[in-house]
Amino acid sequence: MKRIAIDMDEVIADAMSKYLRLYNEGFQEQLTAADLHGVKLRALRPERSDDIHEIFMTNDFFRDLEVMPHSQEVIRELSESYEIFITTAAMEVPTSFNAKYAWLKEHFPFLSDMNFVFCGDKSIIRADYLIDDNAKHFERFEGQGLLFTSPHNILETGYVRVNNWLEVRDFFAKALNM
Amino acid sequence: MKRIAIDMDEVIADAMSKYLRLYNEGFQEQLTAADLHGVKLRALRPERSDDIHEIFMTNDFFRDLEVMPHSQEVIRELSESYEIFITTAAMEVPTSFNAKYAWLKEHFPFLSDMNFVFCGDKSIIRADYLIDDNAKHFERFEGQGLLFTSPHNILETGYVRVNNWLEVRDFFAKALNM
Repeated sequence: MKRIAIDMDEVIADAMSKYLRLYNEGFQEQLTAADLHGVKLRALRPERSDDIHEIFMTNDFFRDLEVMPHSQEVIRELSESYEIFITTAAMEVPTSFNAKYAWLKEHFPFLSDMNFVFCGDKSIIRADYLIDDNAKHFERFEGQGLLFTSPHNILETGYVRVNNWLEVRDFFAKALNM
Repeated sequence: MKRIAIDMDEVIADAMSKYLRLYNEGFQEQLTAADLHGVKLRALRPERSDDIHEIFMTNDFFRDLEVMPHSQEVIRELSESYEIFITTAAMEVPTSFNAKYAWLKEHFPFLSDMNFVFCGDKSIIRADYLIDDNAKHFERFEGQGLLFTSPHNILETGYVRVNNWLEVRDFFAKALNM
C-alpha cells in the first residue's frame, strides 16, 4: 500500500485566516490573503517579525483553526487505498504540540495517532507522496511532492500543484487508474 | 552524509529506573531490572496494566530522566560524520511532548530541534540506521536496525545488537572504515 504524507497548516488547517485576523486586530491593518501573494507575512512586515512569531507561539493558536474545505472527506476516501500520515513541522513552534494533537484527534478521528508525525526537517519522512504548501520540504524528499496552493507559494513553479482538496481527489483517482 | 535515527527511552533516556522506582513505591514491591529480562513491566504485571500506564501519563514523567551513560559524547562525535535525528514514539504517550522536548534541549543542546521527530509508527522514518530498543520498529524500516540492549529485549535474536554507547561508537568506527 502506497503512502501519502500530508502537512497540517495551510493544507488541512486554515492557519492563515486566524493569523491575518489577529495581526490586523493587533496592528490596525486590513491585510487580506491577496496581500500575501508570493510572500509570507513575516517577509511582508519584517519590522514586526517578532510580533508575528508571538501570534503562533500562543499555546492555543493551533487548537481552533478551521478545517480546510473537503479535506476530511477526501482524506477519509484516500485512507481506503493509501496509508495516510500527517507530517507537520511542529518543531518550528514547540508550544503547538498539545493543540495540534487535540485538533487532529477532533477533526480526523478516523486516523490513528500512530500516524501523526511532529517533526522539523521533513527529509526524515519516507513516503510516496507529500502534500505540502512549503516547497522547501520537497528538496530532499524522495517521493512525489504535491504543492498545495497557498497565497505565499503562488509564484512557485516546477512542482505539481493542487489548488484544493477536490483536485487532490482527482490527482489520486488518476494515479490509481494508471 | 548518511543518517542515524536514534530512539529516546531506554536508548538515550533511562526511563526504566524511574518507572521501576515509582512502581515499587506504589505497590510495595522490590522489582529490579533482572525481573524484566525478556518481558515488559505491563506484561509481567498485567493486572496492573492501567496503573503502570498512568505512571507514564504524568505530565512530567519524562522531564527528569537520567541520560544514558556516554550517549552525549558518542552522539556528539557521530554528529560530525552523520546526520543525527532523534525519533521517539511520543504519540504512545501524548502527554509527553513538552517534557521530551525540554529534556532534549537540556541534554542534547548541540542537536537542532529541526532533527527531533515525535511519531508513532516508525516506518515513516527515512534513515540509514535506527538505534532502538524495540525490535518491532525494525520490521518495516528500510535501513539497518541496531537493537540497543534493554532487559525487555534480552531474548531477541536476529538483529545486530549494541549493549551500550561505547559499542555504538565501535560499530560506527568500523562502518566508517569499511
